[in-house]
Amino acid sequence: MARPNPDQVKSVTTIGAGPIGAGWAAHFLARGYDVVAYIHDPAEEAAFRKILDTGWVSLEGLGLAEGASRDRLTLTSDLADAISGAEFVQESAPEILELKQALYAQLSELVPEDVVISSSTSGLTMTEIQAKCPTAARTVVGHPFNPPYLLPLVEIVGGDQSSPEAVAWAAAFYKAAGKAPLVMNKEIPGFVATRLQEALWREALHMVANGEATPEQIDTALINGPAPRMALQGQCMAFHVACGEGGMATNLDQFGPALKLPWTRLEAPELTPELRNRMVDGCNEIAGDRHFEDMAEARDRGIVAILNAIKEVQT
Amino acid sequence: MARPNPDQVKSVTTIGAGPIGAGWAAHFLARGYDVVAYIHDPAEEAAFRKILDTGWVSLEGLGLAEGASRDRLTLTSDLADAISGAEFVQESAPEILELKQALYAQLSELVPEDVVISSSTSGLTMTEIQAKCPTAARTVVGHPFNPPYLLPLVEIVGGDQSSPEAVAWAAAFYKAAGKAPLVMNKEIPGFVATRLQEALWREALHMVANGEATPEQIDTALINGPAPRMALQGQCMAFHVACGEGGMATNLDQFGPALKLPWTRLEAPELTPELRNRMVDGCNEIAGDRHFEDMAEARDRGIVAILNAIKEVQT
Repeated sequence: MARPNPDQVKSVTTIGAGPIGAGWAAHFLARGYDVVAYIHDPAEEAAFRKILDTGWVSLEGLGLAEGASRDRLTLTSDLADAISGAEFVQESAPEILELKQALYAQLSELVPEDVVISSSTSGLTMTEIQAKCPTAARTVVGHPFNPPYLLPLVEIVGGDQSSPEAVAWAAAFYKAAGKAPLVMNKEIPGFVATRLQEALWREALHMVANGEATPEQIDTALINGPAPRMALQGQCMAFHVACGEGGMATNLDQFGPALKLPWTRLEAPELTPELRNRMVDGCNEIAGDRHFEDMAEARDRGIVAILNAIKEVQT
Repeated sequence: MARPNPDQVKSVTTIGAGPIGAGWAAHFLARGYDVVAYIHDPAEEAAFRKILDTGWVSLEGLGLAEGASRDRLTLTSDLADAISGAEFVQESAPEILELKQALYAQLSELVPEDVVISSSTSGLTMTEIQAKCPTAARTVVGHPFNPPYLLPLVEIVGGDQSSPEAVAWAAAFYKAAGKAPLVMNKEIPGFVATRLQEALWREALHMVANGEATPEQIDTALINGPAPRMALQGQCMAFHVACGEGGMATNLDQFGPALKLPWTRLEAPELTPELRNRMVDGCNEIAGDRHFEDMAEARDRGIVAILNAIKEVQT
């Protein structure tokens, strides 16, 4: 069997009954796929269905794909049954290396070799997970941001034995399935989003430990300060656009020295010419031919929409 | 003259023609105040008006207060004129200590002693700024998150000579003026929001320097991962609610050891029982009598609204 076109996948198998596994099942159902969900123990069904039903409310709010229905879910505790007919497998088994290694060895026998198997793992690497899998080339990580039915991000990365084609196929498939895929160049602990979030979280803990801020002050600051903007523009483009014509180059050349200030307990990196240029070139690439004034205007329009949406939902 | 009731202020003076000064003027006009704006050099008028007009588009989008109008702006380059009749002064002069110290000495003579003078400073402390001001008790910092007409956060903190009453009055006034005030307990570099943002920014720079991520990957991760949730729930309550019944206590007791993992280059603080309890108590206080399921449901509803608002504004 040849790998299907990523746009034409009809049937997905999910593995796992926890918030991630059930959240993925909810997402794929809402995007109009047939979903076969493997749960290890039939006793997990009630918990699985509760997550599915909770997620469904949000998924309806976001808009279901044509023909999407929870009736297109098949639940099973027979792995071979779960796999038969799968064109893609999303694995969200417990985060125990030995367990995952054994599972991937088993999947290797059950799943046709062209079908991509993607792991939701947040704490393990695919290089470790695939170590005992005879068909490792088609295994990748597709790490969602929790909850998987709601936040679009999926961080995709292969292990040492993964084929670049499988990684590219997974990215194309996730995109077709309504996700925002981020293909990483190498396996790093915490991926990108969690790592950035963790830096912020550690600084928050330091501030509370030192009596500099309370949890309430921290949350008030985030909600009313950087977050609404960050939902539209990441930190790189936020600085790029805020600096006008000069963009990121102005930001780094002018405020670079401020990196040395003892704001936060995270040591700043050395601002080498190479780092400067990577940041500047990266932002210019994202901007393309858009003028900073147009991007600033789009940002403001977006923040207004976000603030109004929050206001509406909270009253 | 006694300090006016914070809810009954009618006239505000802003000082400064840059994005912060003009942004504040735009905000106060939109909230229905009479605004007298002092600009140092009449030649700055065009730039000032451009920021005002840009901000006005967003302020109209957010909804103007009754009677709000740009016609209620008076521009002047005469400081004494600007001050006469002011019930509150928002100072956004250049970030040069000697300049601000001289300005506050001058304001001390011009502004009735009960009127609160609030500085937008981001890099200086009020203890430094007020050092040569004979009427320092009524001077405070009211630090906006840029742009001031759009993002609700104002971080408020006094210097050594500031009176607690002036700080409390400023917080009540900003709240009446449609802002989200955050009163800080002590002066710390970077305040709360910028400090948290800076930790994230430094980690982002490290990742780019090490070839672990590009600016585009960083922004994709933030926009599609933590940011839409963070616009509703700060990082503390996000973890509290995500951990269900157990809340922040479960988060710290279960995932505390993960703090030691080399995710991010920011060293984790020691998770002492005291820090643990401050985090747990803080989150419980914010939650009040709301059940975690209700908070999770409100979060999801809010994220759906935010994602739909972004989608709408981008198509």
